[in-house]
Amino acid sequence: PIMWLEKSHPLGYGEPGFEPLVVLELASDIKEEAVVWLLSRIRDPQQNGGHLGPGVRPQEKENPNLFLVGASWQRLLSGAEDLGLFKEYSDGSMRGFTCSNKHNFKDFTGDGDSFLSMAECQHIIKHELDTLRAREETHVPGYPQAKLYPGKSIIRRLQSKRILIQMFPLHHKEELKRLSFSWYQKVRLSLQPLDSIRHYYGEGQALYFGFLEYFTFALVPMALIGVPYYLFDWEDYDKYVIFAVFNLVWCTVILELWKRRSASLAYQWGTLSRKQAFEEPRPGFHGVLGFNPVTGREEPLYSNAKRQLRIYLVSLPFVLLCLYLSLYVMMVYFLLEGWVLSIHDENPTFWTGVLLFIPSVAYAVVIEAMNLIYRYAAEFLTEWENHRLESSYQNHLVLKVLVYNFFNCFASLFYIAFVMQDMVLLRQSLATLLITSQILNQFMEAFLPYWLQRRRNKKMVRKVQGRRVLEDKALPLAEQVRLEADMSTYLGTFDDYLELFLLFGYVSLFSCVYPLAAVLVVLNNITEVYSDAFKMCHVFKRPFADPAANIGVWQLAFEAMSVIAVVTNCALIGMSPQVRAYFPHSETQLILWTVAVEHGLLALKFILTFLIPDVPKHIQIKLARIEFESLEALKKKLSS
Amino acid sequence: PIMWLEKSHPLGYGEPGFEPLVVLELASDIKEEAVVWLLSRIRDPQQNGGHLGPGVRPQEKENPNLFLVGASWQRLLSGAEDLGLFKEYSDGSMRGFTCSNKHNFKDFTGDGDSFLSMAECQHIIKHELDTLRAREETHVPGYPQAKLYPGKSIIRRLQSKRILIQMFPLHHKEELKRLSFSWYQKVRLSLQPLDSIRHYYGEGQALYFGFLEYFTFALVPMALIGVPYYLFDWEDYDKYVIFAVFNLVWCTVILELWKRRSASLAYQWGTLSRKQAFEEPRPGFHGVLGFNPVTGREEPLYSNAKRQLRIYLVSLPFVLLCLYLSLYVMMVYFLLEGWVLSIHDENPTFWTGVLLFIPSVAYAVVIEAMNLIYRYAAEFLTEWENHRLESSYQNHLVLKVLVYNFFNCFASLFYIAFVMQDMVLLRQSLATLLITSQILNQFMEAFLPYWLQRRRNKKMVRKVQGRRVLEDKALPLAEQVRLEADMSTYLGTFDDYLELFLLFGYVSLFSCVYPLAAVLVVLNNITEVYSDAFKMCHVFKRPFADPAANIGVWQLAFEAMSVIAVVTNCALIGMSPQVRAYFPHSETQLILWTVAVEHGLLALKFILTFLIPDVPKHIQIKLARIEFESLEALKKKLSS
Repeated sequence: PIMWLEKSHPLGYGEPGFEPLVVLELASDIKEEAVVWLLSRIRDPQQNGGHLGPGVRPQEKENPNLFLVGASWQRLLSGAEDLGLFKEYSDGSMRGFTCSNKHNFKDFTGDGDSFLSMAECQHIIKHELDTLRAREETHVPGYPQAKLYPGKSIIRRLQSKRILIQMFPLHHKEELKRLSFSWYQKVRLSLQPLDSIRHYYGEGQALYFGFLEYFTFALVPMALIGVPYYLFDWEDYDKYVIFAVFNLVWCTVILELWKRRSASLAYQWGTLSRKQAFEEPRPGFHGVLGFNPVTGREEPLYSNAKRQLRIYLVSLPFVLLCLYLSLYVMMVYFLLEGWVLSIHDENPTFWTGVLLFIPSVAYAVVIEAMNLIYRYAAEFLTEWENHRLESSYQNHLVLKVLVYNFFNCFASLFYIAFVMQDMVLLRQSLATLLITSQILNQFMEAFLPYWLQRRRNKKMVRKVQGRRVLEDKALPLAEQVRLEADMSTYLGTFDDYLELFLLFGYVSLFSCVYPLAAVLVVLNNITEVYSDAFKMCHVFKRPFADPAANIGVWQLAFEAMSVIAVVTNCALIGMSPQVRAYFPHSETQLILWTVAVEHGLLALKFILTFLIPDVPKHIQIKLARIEFESLEALKKKLSS
Repeated sequence: PIMWLEKSHPLGYGEPGFEPLVVLELASDIKEEAVVWLLSRIRDPQQNGGHLGPGVRPQEKENPNLFLVGASWQRLLSGAEDLGLFKEYSDGSMRGFTCSNKHNFKDFTGDGDSFLSMAECQHIIKHELDTLRAREETHVPGYPQAKLYPGKSIIRRLQSKRILIQMFPLHHKEELKRLSFSWYQKVRLSLQPLDSIRHYYGEGQALYFGFLEYFTFALVPMALIGVPYYLFDWEDYDKYVIFAVFNLVWCTVILELWKRRSASLAYQWGTLSRKQAFEEPRPGFHGVLGFNPVTGREEPLYSNAKRQLRIYLVSLPFVLLCLYLSLYVMMVYFLLEGWVLSIHDENPTFWTGVLLFIPSVAYAVVIEAMNLIYRYAAEFLTEWENHRLESSYQNHLVLKVLVYNFFNCFASLFYIAFVMQDMVLLRQSLATLLITSQILNQFMEAFLPYWLQRRRNKKMVRKVQGRRVLEDKALPLAEQVRLEADMSTYLGTFDDYLELFLLFGYVSLFSCVYPLAAVLVVLNNITEVYSDAFKMCHVFKRPFADPAANIGVWQLAFEAMSVIAVVTNCALIGMSPQVRAYFPHSETQLILWTVAVEHGLLALKFILTFLIPDVPKHIQIKLARIEFESLEALKKKLSS
């Protein structure tokens, strides 16, 4: 990799041509030889004008080693070619970028200064750093315990041995200001600036916000229909049936249409045509160094059969065991609750009144603890499964965690709905869950971290101001880096999607019991947009861009949820007294009818899914055109 | 198109370099100017050494105009390139054939005489003829009523106006002998020679026989498990449950594995990588002449939205109406049957005994008539929907017809099973249906046509022999052409697949009522292989090769059937007295358990379908490699 590297120093920045993009924070007690070795590996030996900045170390003792990494435009463009970035061509189609052909791309002007977004540049540098692999080295110089072998990712080993503390992309003050203004500081309601978000944070983030926005709009009709049911207390189940059927069909349709919208966005952003199989493996991937059978590049290889064995023989049984445990804990909780209630009913005193709360509290604590342990275990297992692609790793991790979370969140609701058959309690629980989770989430996600961050910042600023008086108008870059290094790390869109997923569960699974759910979720989503945008801009470190082509396994998760929703809604309607009144003599008839309707709805769902094409026609044509031209080009190449 | 064209003549064949491939039969009263025009369009004007055979017309009055079409090897190879045939490259991968690169293909030796199979040559010629499109002509010369407009397929118009009677590929005596020997004349049991079938008849046929063989082998375990149930009269439903669950999982697994096998076969035959979207439209396709947005070639264009409107607003309601009619007829039949039975029971005489048969006979006649009308209507509608690709046309036609046939075949069985709940009658009906359909089919499909054909041949041979005495050792080509022209036309694999589909329905839908079904189907399939092979070789005209990559909509149909099978089997088990005995007090409990088990099985099915990859890993890698190389080649091309 050909890179410029610069140590951050409190005096700010001398070199005018250097734009810092990524920050590396090394351990404060790092050995000098390791630093020299790492820098020599990052800097390209053949680079013309390769350049290491003035090695001024920060004076303060508590300040660790911060290095800034940048690269020349030439280097970034060739990195974009290596990564296979897709850019808009002069004819309006999206094509893989090549340096030798750069002038034919639409937005390429002059020396290409604004051609790549900052997020793309940072992604390119991250990619280059991630794919720095050991060759002859057996260990990191100065650290005999940090073993290396051919093909091992250097950055990965440094991270695992805590020699490299962190690596993160820098914010761009100006752009951030512009983005946050158009995003959430404008008072009037407007669509989110998805293109700007993508420009600044990358495709993964932009798709999340795109989905959040889409999902909110899609829920509006359900919310509007739900309001009169709530206001006029329409306990008439004839009407509920219509409401539920509308909800089910609507859920299917919006999920299918989202696929199309997501494909349009991803095409326009150039990630739809990118083939992940052709990408470099993720840094954590290990194996024997060999040649990739598809691309012919040298990289670690790992047998697919071994991975499958690990998944099916270890991960799957583990997940099932955890689900069983979780179910067991829930049953114990309901037992305890019943037992405590009976004690209280027999002889109600103040202490039995307190006792009433104990099972709930204990259950909440146990569930939270189990959640935490499970999350760690899931991460460990997924890492151990050794997936080649980041997306595949993410998908497997998400699948594990979300199955467990789904179970934990909904098992008790299912129990209330179908075992206890207490609709009033169900409605209460739903309302409580929706409202408290909304308030809590907003608080925990945005305001609390913001407040903590602000306190830290103030301290920092005070300290800096103290120094500033002495040094007079120092450039704020060094402080900016220092401030950002101390911000908490954004852990990806996982928790945000999970929250949406659970909300979707509340609104779809039990929609016919609590028609107001959609309204609450819409309200929640509107505030969620703001709080998520705020936390992305001001609370967390800037995350690296993630060139996602779709929302991955979440699409599947939402679809699975909508299938389960058909079952639960039909069951709830079948259980309602109004419907029962139609079959006064025979419960069997009632159940058979319910099951028949449910099967019909499921069939309708699958037919709808099948009939609505996942990619809009005009994009299909553009993709086919690229494919056709590629095949023709290959034919010509082979012929010549 | 650069073609050689030759009129068949009774004296056989003078030109030694000419290999006749395809026969065109023109109307016997065709006007001379139309012939001259057609020949001029077929023969390429720029062709070097272009050649029209000695125009000797057959002497006999009853002999119509038969023309033989062949082509030089050069022409066929360039046709193969136009069609985008995939052939094995020297490195073992499958690549699009190009003339300039021909020597790098594995089997290309010398002047490429055996490089293309005869089926491929015939397919190339058919393709060239089909894509002969009118340019300035407003009508066929000599036929003012046969209108032409730019882009209209000439062959299509000639066929619709009965100027061109038929067009079919010639058999190759020697190869046919070899093929039929290895296929069905050997006494010992062996696998079918799929590669030879593909070589002679093309990929569509070979895939059908591959599926038939695979399906037969896949049913063997079900048949073996079914035998003891039948022999020992295991009326124990505990065991039936195991049997049914095994069947359901097995059906899912074999269908998934077939996808993989089909992908392997298609890859090896070069049809998997072929992109149908890049192919020329089917001859019946019409529209305004324009430029294809993908390939940039000039061809008719037709709006997709219009086609969708025709499908959803006309075809779909029509199919639903027909299904309703069919259901109505069935209900009338059951009513009549009950009424006749009551008359017979009241006062049984000889005439009421005769009367008992009348509803069944009337029902059979009405159903057969409706089937026939429906088939015509479906063909008309699908034609009218104006599909661009032959495969898409076939899929829509198949879907229409098979839904109706499924309904007709199984509606009465469903009625017996779930409304009358008469398991003994169900078992009887199943056995009768399976055995009679087997015998009837075999007779109607192979022996009857064979016998008719043989009688016709004998007449012909006698006539020829009479002449042969006069002319002494004439080459039999003219007679061969004459004989083949009189054979019946093979209407594609549709009816064969439909038969397999219905058999699969009998064996999977009601497997737990009649465990012997699988045995009967296996026996039927074994004879079916022979009778189908025989009829392909000796009863019907040779069909044109069809470069199929999979069994198309049939895969979907079989999968849908296996989903329905889960529902019916669970319902049948739930209805069995043994299972009812477990829930003596509550029918509700029984139904709820049945439904729960059914949902579990359905979920298992979908997870299995999802987990088993459709294309084997090693083929995925090969496909990805081609795609990667193509994209790289495109990048290079754009750069240079």
